[in-house]
Amino acid sequence: MANSIYSRRLAGVRALMRKKRIDALIVPSADPHLGEYVPDYWRVIRWLTGFSGSTATVVITRSFAGLWTDSRYFIQAEGQLINSGFQLVKLRVPHTPEHIEWLQAKIKKGSMVAVDGRLISAGNLRLLEAALSPGGVKLNIKADLITPLWKERPLMPDDKAFTLPVKFSGESRVARIKRVREKMAEMHIDYQLLTAADDVMWLLNIRGKDLRYSPLLLSFAIVSSDQVLFFANEDKIPSSLKAEFDRDGIVLLPYDTVSSVISHLEEGSALLLSPSSTSSVLYRAVPKKVKITEEVSIPTRFKAIKNKTEIKNLRQVMVRDGVALTKFFYWLEKSIFGETVTELSASARLDTFRQEQEEFTGASFATIAAYNEHAALPHYVPDEGTDARLGKSGIFLLDSGGQYFGGTTDITRTIALGKPDSRMKSDFTLAVKGTIDLAMVRFPYGTRGYQIDVLARKALWDNGLNYGHGTGHGVGSFLNVHEGPQAIGTAASGDLKTLLEPGMLISDEPAVYRQGEYGFRTENLLFCVDDFETDHGKFLKFETVTLCYIDCDLIEVSLLDDRELKWLNEYHETVFRALGGSLEPDIRKWLRGKTMPVKRSQGAIFK
Amino acid sequence: MANSIYSRRLAGVRALMRKKRIDALIVPSADPHLGEYVPDYWRVIRWLTGFSGSTATVVITRSFAGLWTDSRYFIQAEGQLINSGFQLVKLRVPHTPEHIEWLQAKIKKGSMVAVDGRLISAGNLRLLEAALSPGGVKLNIKADLITPLWKERPLMPDDKAFTLPVKFSGESRVARIKRVREKMAEMHIDYQLLTAADDVMWLLNIRGKDLRYSPLLLSFAIVSSDQVLFFANEDKIPSSLKAEFDRDGIVLLPYDTVSSVISHLEEGSALLLSPSSTSSVLYRAVPKKVKITEEVSIPTRFKAIKNKTEIKNLRQVMVRDGVALTKFFYWLEKSIFGETVTELSASARLDTFRQEQEEFTGASFATIAAYNEHAALPHYVPDEGTDARLGKSGIFLLDSGGQYFGGTTDITRTIALGKPDSRMKSDFTLAVKGTIDLAMVRFPYGTRGYQIDVLARKALWDNGLNYGHGTGHGVGSFLNVHEGPQAIGTAASGDLKTLLEPGMLISDEPAVYRQGEYGFRTENLLFCVDDFETDHGKFLKFETVTLCYIDCDLIEVSLLDDRELKWLNEYHETVFRALGGSLEPDIRKWLRGKTMPVKRSQGAIFK
Repeated sequence: MANSIYSRRLAGVRALMRKKRIDALIVPSADPHLGEYVPDYWRVIRWLTGFSGSTATVVITRSFAGLWTDSRYFIQAEGQLINSGFQLVKLRVPHTPEHIEWLQAKIKKGSMVAVDGRLISAGNLRLLEAALSPGGVKLNIKADLITPLWKERPLMPDDKAFTLPVKFSGESRVARIKRVREKMAEMHIDYQLLTAADDVMWLLNIRGKDLRYSPLLLSFAIVSSDQVLFFANEDKIPSSLKAEFDRDGIVLLPYDTVSSVISHLEEGSALLLSPSSTSSVLYRAVPKKVKITEEVSIPTRFKAIKNKTEIKNLRQVMVRDGVALTKFFYWLEKSIFGETVTELSASARLDTFRQEQEEFTGASFATIAAYNEHAALPHYVPDEGTDARLGKSGIFLLDSGGQYFGGTTDITRTIALGKPDSRMKSDFTLAVKGTIDLAMVRFPYGTRGYQIDVLARKALWDNGLNYGHGTGHGVGSFLNVHEGPQAIGTAASGDLKTLLEPGMLISDEPAVYRQGEYGFRTENLLFCVDDFETDHGKFLKFETVTLCYIDCDLIEVSLLDDRELKWLNEYHETVFRALGGSLEPDIRKWLRGKTMPVKRSQGAIFK
Repeated sequence: MANSIYSRRLAGVRALMRKKRIDALIVPSADPHLGEYVPDYWRVIRWLTGFSGSTATVVITRSFAGLWTDSRYFIQAEGQLINSGFQLVKLRVPHTPEHIEWLQAKIKKGSMVAVDGRLISAGNLRLLEAALSPGGVKLNIKADLITPLWKERPLMPDDKAFTLPVKFSGESRVARIKRVREKMAEMHIDYQLLTAADDVMWLLNIRGKDLRYSPLLLSFAIVSSDQVLFFANEDKIPSSLKAEFDRDGIVLLPYDTVSSVISHLEEGSALLLSPSSTSSVLYRAVPKKVKITEEVSIPTRFKAIKNKTEIKNLRQVMVRDGVALTKFFYWLEKSIFGETVTELSASARLDTFRQEQEEFTGASFATIAAYNEHAALPHYVPDEGTDARLGKSGIFLLDSGGQYFGGTTDITRTIALGKPDSRMKSDFTLAVKGTIDLAMVRFPYGTRGYQIDVLARKALWDNGLNYGHGTGHGVGSFLNVHEGPQAIGTAASGDLKTLLEPGMLISDEPAVYRQGEYGFRTENLLFCVDDFETDHGKFLKFETVTLCYIDCDLIEVSLLDDRELKWLNEYHETVFRALGGSLEPDIRKWLRGKTMPVKRSQGAIFK
């Protein structure tokens, strides 16, 4: 019955498994840098199963083949897996390794489980071992069953890397390397292994074109007190950049040699690596007598704190991004009752408005353009199968971002397409109260993101509402749109040591979702900045840097308190002043209307 | 120069150290149950150094003897350590093992460090080993250098244990044991080791008199699927209780045999223990082939959630405790301008008012009675050296609690003794806003304490204020006044898995301190209760159960929003209705005055 190309590929994998005495194979959706996005070369699951979603895990045994993914992909996966030989296994909790529980329950003692050790982090391998080894199950992390079978595998991109000038980065690579070395000395670290490509980009002030949404060159680096080894495909480094590297003492080595270099680190030396972004293969290459310190990388901590140049650049980028969005929403309002506008055509149109902007290089993630019930799915991305036509009523949620030389943006706005009913206005306003209340918080130095998350949720909680995702994530400077180590969320998991610090950029995106009806989310980016100092310590606050009007047709003014209303009106004045000068007269006039101060009705004052 | 009894004791310890080839000795302030309070028998540091504070760590080497303690004890320790041969080492962060850093820096390779393994938890020993073994330092946890030297050591208390009737516990011991066994089966645990005495008390529905502030019998227990082994001094178990134990299948064994029983657990069995409350000696007694699960104990999780009887009893206890406090504050207001009232005499008087109450057995901790600048020290406890006379101006902070058969109380009130200035009123009100805002929160099931901590701090943060301690701790049912696993605080350390659940009792005690001037704290106990359920899940809220007026002379009404003011006035009405009937007419009338609704001035309404 299952007789598709995918079931033939599955049969091929099973044949190899038998040959290599492997009882179960795990296939993650990852590349050796373990980042959020991967190039087509590493989209093994799409080749193997036909499933095109970004996140999944496949497990194959002799008698079973399953694909674990989260709720946003359930419908898509059910369709794409028909006749593939793979069955969908629905994750109860997104981004959790529930396939491990399955293996633990199903795999017999003495079995061999394989996973490509390049594609599983040392941290996750440890979880897998802890689950399986007490049951006498063995692990093989060296078997690559895919390469021999995938004949027409896409090539790795061959676009060249380029230098990011100091006018964008604000700091030379020599200065960055020096700072990292000082921190290494302070931590008594001899070697810093960098496996996340954005860490390498930041350190070396370069960018690449290997991924669709992040300007990364997939590469590794090792920093010591007197050397920087940079592991990349030589063909992708232009000669001008090679000359810069020579001048700055950076040694270019073939991409594939990183494991071998790691395996020759001298005994007794101290190596810093992050177990969540270091592959098991690299981790295991470290000689036994090297002392490993497991920690978030130094560049990850450093790059989270933007310098003055990066801050200034992002403010300029925000004007451009805001102009593009304003033009888009103006176009949408004017067009929606005339031409056919769908989620996909709106996304495309937004892209053209961003492309008109200086130094824009592409989207920072797949645009979430969601009409009505699609907006209730936090991670919905339209495709040909789901694309909905925007109508004369309901709501439209747009979560998008751009990559500019001067910075990365991420913004969500939800607008009413007709006259919203009172529940919609109440829901929208309660979520916006969260966006505003978080933006207004003042907090002592030493505060962590999880401590202030509730401020974004309190108005919702008071009304029996909530949202099932985090409130804020870090954002890179012309790097990944999702960047650590800081975050604002309910879970104090992950890195408990990370404080909110001046210079950090973080999103503020509370939301409310009504399944099958609609969803509202308003997302701004905030800079953390110094506020003042008292006997009780140094206090910090946020500054909202995203510039785009919030649809006041959805605001129920009586739900805002005086401070929130003042914030909203001041924000709108800021938006108009920042963008107005870059807009044509008719759009400027339109934006003036969208950003007029909201006033309480006479009734509200005395109620 | 140092020629006191303490320096002679130090010399005696050093002589034994030489004999046993010990280079450094660590002396913790703990007993083998690793709880907050210890009996005199275990107050080794007081005997050795003269320091009488409750928390400290001593480290002795051939050439150095130091005592690490936190800021609340700095002045006291400096005085008490004169001529002792010990020097004070000031902890930078309270309750942290900073002596380990010192040892790491000072102790040479090949040295032997000793600590009595009965008095250090397995968790803390692990920290010590991790710090010292890389430097080639060895650890000896079996050397007891104190017993041979301490000739007139206090005896362990010989008071007998007693049964806590089901009318107080709400559940028979048989039912409790059954519930624990069901949970053990679910967790695939064969043995549950109980080392914290309050866990044992809860499980067996007994109480003891070994400690001053907690009704505990120092004892251990091991629960299996068919046995409960109870390790205690047989003399302290009355025959009636022995008969109950026989009937209920509980085996009484000598206190000292727990280690030996542990060492005979059968191979392959699964043992649950908590590494923070299990001594290193017991931990090491576990045979290698026993599978240890390290987790908060099952009784700790169970007893945190109070049953209906415990809830009902505590509500009654709160009336009694509130009556005692009301009488006290009435007495204070009437007496302060006549007789001499000091912090210590006020404490004693409070005690007599509590003793008049039914089923009161003693204080639940050392009363913090603090006048003016003493109130700026969160853990201040008056003694003869610091005792201050209460004057006609300033403020008086009283943090106290009682042990009753029906429950344990913990309450803080701060009152003005004269006319407070505007900064005092502002400070007090900002902290009270925190008490109220936390009490009013509504939150989804699944929320952890650290998520809502900010609600108690936000009004302070907005004004550049803060406090350096947690916001809330669990409270036992006629057990320890500080009880886990739940807590409300800034740190998501400790047990990240613990959710706030209906039936949990937790304190709500934001504060503000002005060093050298005054401090304000208002502390109530809250029950977590069900609120309602929506499409977005089940929501919970708190109910304030503490019953005592809040001094409105310190309230700046304009700083309270409408909801907070409503809460305050409703709370005061509840307090008056609950307590009024138990008070004599003149005190009742006085309380009516203290609990009259606070109104906004006309000016405030229109400002």
